[in-house]
Amino acid sequence: MPQIHQQRRAALAARLQAPAALITRLVNVRYLTGLESSNAAALVFADGRAVLATDGRYAGTAAVAAPDLETVITPRVAEALIERAGPELAFEAHDVTVEDHARLFCDVRATPLGHLVEELRAVKDEAEIDLLRRACALTDRAFALVLPLLAPGVTERRVAVALERHMIDLGADGIAFPSIVASGPNGAVPHHVPGDRPLADGDLVTMDFGAQVGGYHADMTRTVAVGSAAAWQREVYGLVAEAQRAAVAAAVPGADVAAVDAAARTVIAAGGHGADFTHGLGHGVGLEIHEAPMLGPSRTGKLGDRVPVTAEPGVYLAGRGGVRIEDTLVVRADGPEILTQTTKELLVL
Amino acid sequence: MPQIHQQRRAALAARLQAPAALITRLVNVRYLTGLESSNAAALVFADGRAVLATDGRYAGTAAVAAPDLETVITPRVAEALIERAGPELAFEAHDVTVEDHARLFCDVRATPLGHLVEELRAVKDEAEIDLLRRACALTDRAFALVLPLLAPGVTERRVAVALERHMIDLGADGIAFPSIVASGPNGAVPHHVPGDRPLADGDLVTMDFGAQVGGYHADMTRTVAVGSAAAWQREVYGLVAEAQRAAVAAAVPGADVAAVDAAARTVIAAGGHGADFTHGLGHGVGLEIHEAPMLGPSRTGKLGDRVPVTAEPGVYLAGRGGVRIEDTLVVRADGPEILTQTTKELLVL
Repeated sequence: MPQIHQQRRAALAARLQAPAALITRLVNVRYLTGLESSNAAALVFADGRAVLATDGRYAGTAAVAAPDLETVITPRVAEALIERAGPELAFEAHDVTVEDHARLFCDVRATPLGHLVEELRAVKDEAEIDLLRRACALTDRAFALVLPLLAPGVTERRVAVALERHMIDLGADGIAFPSIVASGPNGAVPHHVPGDRPLADGDLVTMDFGAQVGGYHADMTRTVAVGSAAAWQREVYGLVAEAQRAAVAAAVPGADVAAVDAAARTVIAAGGHGADFTHGLGHGVGLEIHEAPMLGPSRTGKLGDRVPVTAEPGVYLAGRGGVRIEDTLVVRADGPEILTQTTKELLVL
Repeated sequence: MPQIHQQRRAALAARLQAPAALITRLVNVRYLTGLESSNAAALVFADGRAVLATDGRYAGTAAVAAPDLETVITPRVAEALIERAGPELAFEAHDVTVEDHARLFCDVRATPLGHLVEELRAVKDEAEIDLLRRACALTDRAFALVLPLLAPGVTERRVAVALERHMIDLGADGIAFPSIVASGPNGAVPHHVPGDRPLADGDLVTMDFGAQVGGYHADMTRTVAVGSAAAWQREVYGLVAEAQRAAVAAAVPGADVAAVDAAARTVIAAGGHGADFTHGLGHGVGLEIHEAPMLGPSRTGKLGDRVPVTAEPGVYLAGRGGVRIEDTLVVRADGPEILTQTTKELLVL
């Protein structure tokens, strides 16, 4: 693993405009050094050298995670690394607050690094994809295990807790994000927080959840019907499923992110529900549940090989309910690798 | 509840130096409006008026949480509120990044608000303390339920998962933070991540964990012995327990935070372990697991009535193990209210 992190630092060093970069975003520090800490920073020089800083609580963890790196043990991680840098450095202006900026960079010329590390992170190596694959497999299995529970009378909250338990039982390191379970009319709220509403016969139930393995996040949504599915529910489901397939097919290296979104949106609009698909198509996934690239109508940029993203179109009908279908997939030159493998046929339970 | 939030906004308005304050820290937005959202901001005017902004995903939640507040629905929450403000406003310089600052405040005079909302948040109302009390009660009960599991051969990780499950089963909305279970020599690492080490006869085992209820966080640590406790373990335990009692006794309204820390630290130093107590005494708890006030040797400020804090001295002996004992308590004029009520006698299991 240290070798992977060194390669990542070399990739960053090669793109630096300044003599050094101070990395303060914790997820970026983790990506570049392997150290997961709530108080850490890294200094990466354009010549490839690097120094890590973290506080005493993480000294042991750092020695294991980054044995190849010089590590400064101090609570004031950014200050310690700025002392090590020369008179000029780049910093993560999207992470450093105005307050910290005023305090930290009195005596150095500090210029914004941009989102360089996030851009590097968008393209995953096979070890990262394997962690995502494992997280998605656990997510699939938890879904299968929760299906017998989905019956009238069971509350959304109980379903959410069961999903999360199954993921942990199956070996997940944690959940990727708080699970969404939205039943009946609640399905019209894309980010509904599971509550005390019991499932009822004739409900659509949307479950959006995922496992986390080795820091990597799975993200899957399925919508099922309880007892029976009315004609309008089947129609909306079919439309969203078709849109989702269209998006997956469009997710090829070189595709504009807005075009991938449009592939799904066009289908939904043609079905008369354009105004009911109220969010972007999806997002990158990795060490964060939402990361670059973002897929939406007004987003820019192109997909690349080995970029994991979600494709999650939805239709939300106020007062009635909603449907969302989401996979985590990896954009590949030879076609998308869909990591979440649960069926996308409408299950009526 | 809307009334509580209006009172909080009035308290902020009364302390404003600028005509308005743009609140972007999400936990502060929640405190002032009741809205829990991953994309929200609030504008509070010195005359007491306020506007909330959040995106379409949270429109329904906002209408329920803050029915009294004008709410702008937009993904660009800060931009929308800045348009509503006049030519001058205060902003949370400890939250706004350098990148966002450059983008947001081109046309307005923006001055740092300081940590005004965090200062208000330090003193809790009785409704908040009741949520903390409930979170701590669940934490106590989960601890009691996990005791039968603590036997040689059970891994740290299994103990941690069991603690977290019990809290959820008992009705917690979630865990307050990832649980620490540190056994034997791992106990010398204050923030040890639970791993595959099985408990062994003669181990001290430190468990640091808590439940979350209604957004409020419990924080408790207990150290127990497995099978038997050696003389040195009993001695260190007794010392830490005495230090913890001294800190609790010193936590009265008007006390300097450094003096409360010193109350515990003096006891541990007198016992010959001054260098082995390697962190501050404690911290405020509420909507965040760590919030104002911080209690440590170099911290400044005084405790007030109705300020919940932790008191968590520890002694860490590399290669041998450690002891930490922590309560969540509320500073009160008539003496501290200890919310975590699990025994602090050394349990030998």
